Amino acid sequence: MTLSTTRQAAAPEILDRCRELVRPALVESVRRLHPWHAETAAFSLGWSGVDGSPVPGSQGKGVRQALAVLGAEAAGGSGLDGVTGAVAVELVHTFSLIHDDIMDGDETRRRRPTVWKAYGTGPAVLAGDALFALAVRTLTEVPAPTGPAAVRRLSGALGDLVHGQAQDLLFESRPWTGPEAVLPHEYRAMAAQKTGSLLGCSAALGAVLAGAPAATADALDRAGRHLGVAFQAVDDLLGIWGDPQLTGKPVHSDLRRLKKTFPVLAALASDHPAARRLEAVLTGPGPLDEAGLHRAAGLVDEAGGRRATVTEARDHLRTARACLDGVDLAEGARGDLLTLIPFLVDRTG
Amino acid sequence: MTLSTTRQAAAPEILDRCRELVRPALVESVRRLHPWHAETAAFSLGWSGVDGSPVPGSQGKGVRQALAVLGAEAAGGSGLDGVTGAVAVELVHTFSLIHDDIMDGDETRRRRPTVWKAYGTGPAVLAGDALFALAVRTLTEVPAPTGPAAVRRLSGALGDLVHGQAQDLLFESRPWTGPEAVLPHEYRAMAAQKTGSLLGCSAALGAVLAGAPAATADALDRAGRHLGVAFQAVDDLLGIWGDPQLTGKPVHSDLRRLKKTFPVLAALASDHPAARRLEAVLTGPGPLDEAGLHRAAGLVDEAGGRRATVTEARDHLRTARACLDGVDLAEGARGDLLTLIPFLVDRTG
Repeated sequence: MTLSTTRQAAAPEILDRCRELVRPALVESVRRLHPWHAETAAFSLGWSGVDGSPVPGSQGKGVRQALAVLGAEAAGGSGLDGVTGAVAVELVHTFSLIHDDIMDGDETRRRRPTVWKAYGTGPAVLAGDALFALAVRTLTEVPAPTGPAAVRRLSGALGDLVHGQAQDLLFESRPWTGPEAVLPHEYRAMAAQKTGSLLGCSAALGAVLAGAPAATADALDRAGRHLGVAFQAVDDLLGIWGDPQLTGKPVHSDLRRLKKTFPVLAALASDHPAARRLEAVLTGPGPLDEAGLHRAAGLVDEAGGRRATVTEARDHLRTARACLDGVDLAEGARGDLLTLIPFLVDRTG
Repeated sequence: MTLSTTRQAAAPEILDRCRELVRPALVESVRRLHPWHAETAAFSLGWSGVDGSPVPGSQGKGVRQALAVLGAEAAGGSGLDGVTGAVAVELVHTFSLIHDDIMDGDETRRRRPTVWKAYGTGPAVLAGDALFALAVRTLTEVPAPTGPAAVRRLSGALGDLVHGQAQDLLFESRPWTGPEAVLPHEYRAMAAQKTGSLLGCSAALGAVLAGAPAATADALDRAGRHLGVAFQAVDDLLGIWGDPQLTGKPVHSDLRRLKKTFPVLAALASDHPAARRLEAVLTGPGPLDEAGLHRAAGLVDEAGGRRATVTEARDHLRTARACLDGVDLAEGARGDLLTLIPFLVDRTG
């Protein structure tokens, strides 16, 4: 497949361009919140510190807003057509991070305190709810027929998101071995819902708001879901073998928390003798000490869990790209999406 | 104003009829949740205990679903027209109770453990989110033009609800006296948002789904908001002078928690000398002992706070009824609404 003949922008430039396009509407939207929630949202979006003072450079990449803008452009519209959708998905993403951090008990995110840690659990629950409500409200203000179609897509993605989160939480209480053990395909389905649904919805919303036919939006949605699984697989690799300097988390952090992640599940599902030794380490009495963690990580690798996860990420990236091949898209935006997709997955922290 | 010539049902019969009409759709809706969330929802709705076993008779009155059904009937439709709206508002109400109990740290509700107490804070946050998402999704499945109009109303009410909750939480950290003190009219605005918005939305949604003009839905919405303020005023009276046997809360519970409620704010805002003595008691050092609580409650009464709150409730009930007078409604449903409105407020626990 040939890309556009126009100059191809690099991924960080694409992200910057989309963020700049969306920023005024996102700022305007956050201003509609109760002042207290606006402060919490600005903190969570990385725009300001706990005291409300500006903190330059602490914001996220803005992956979801970029997908919404590119979705609109890919459908033949202007990037501006996707802005309302971009605002909605950024609000949903922010809400879900705030509530996720409560559920996981995480005290830091991007090297800053999490919202519940900085403002208290009750205020964090409510701030998340306020962002959730505003996201829906934002799309309900877009006239028919695109507005209602967009709301329908967002609410479907929200349903998938909470379903995936429930699965992820429940995996924690399931055993490593035996008939109740979590299987790799269950984990994949969870990741597609928990991580993929909002990424897919972001791109699809942009297309819907630009007036695209359902088939185009569906293709972008599917691409985003596969991107989500690939993203989660890389996240899992970093959770075991990531450089603490870059991830901001301790080495072997996911193993430390006995999280059921793809590399471990894939290792346990293999026939390699190291898989049985890994089982013994994981199901042994008491928490793993540093030596145990090191040994477990080595056995996951030896049993093929690390390699299987790299393959998993690559396969889903390839499928994500293939989803875009099967549908009629504006070539410039298709090129930007193809640049962005591997960039989002290929990270070190 | 004359009521319908058909036999007038008593309030409990009206509630029963509406609950029976809505129940199959609500059960069906809860079944769409992740099984874990369905269990939490059934517990929270009073359908089952912590272990999932049925608990007859522990469900709530179903005020919001009744308002949605009656709103549809009042607009000249069938009660069935309002059922989807009834399901949505019951889901939202359940979500807001679950998250409220986390924010307030309440450990019991209707003499059973709250969801966070029974299932943990993280699962309770997520279960609330799942109900929120399902509520929106339920209405997005209703075709245009009524579906999108209903989603718009619900999302507006959700915005008001979280705004009112934020105000309520912030009132806690404001002083009893001085320029920063909470004034009775601020409290009223908070109650209209926190308690009234969903009640108003419930009746309005029923009307919208039955195809009513916006003016009819707006009138029902206003009536519900005033009902909410009246409801909150009575709640505040019960929070200080309610019989612990009936309320399930200790005597003087709101004073014990130094909650800023209407009776106290109205007492402090009065010129009566008891108001100044109340100020001294509330702003004194250390928590109030039993004698101090008893004395504070007496001073609130002496300064006219109790009487002002009864007047407040009566005024808003009268205005709620007047909202229904100004609009063309089916007489049978108007009669049912006029029966229900005072019944919902006139309670002892």
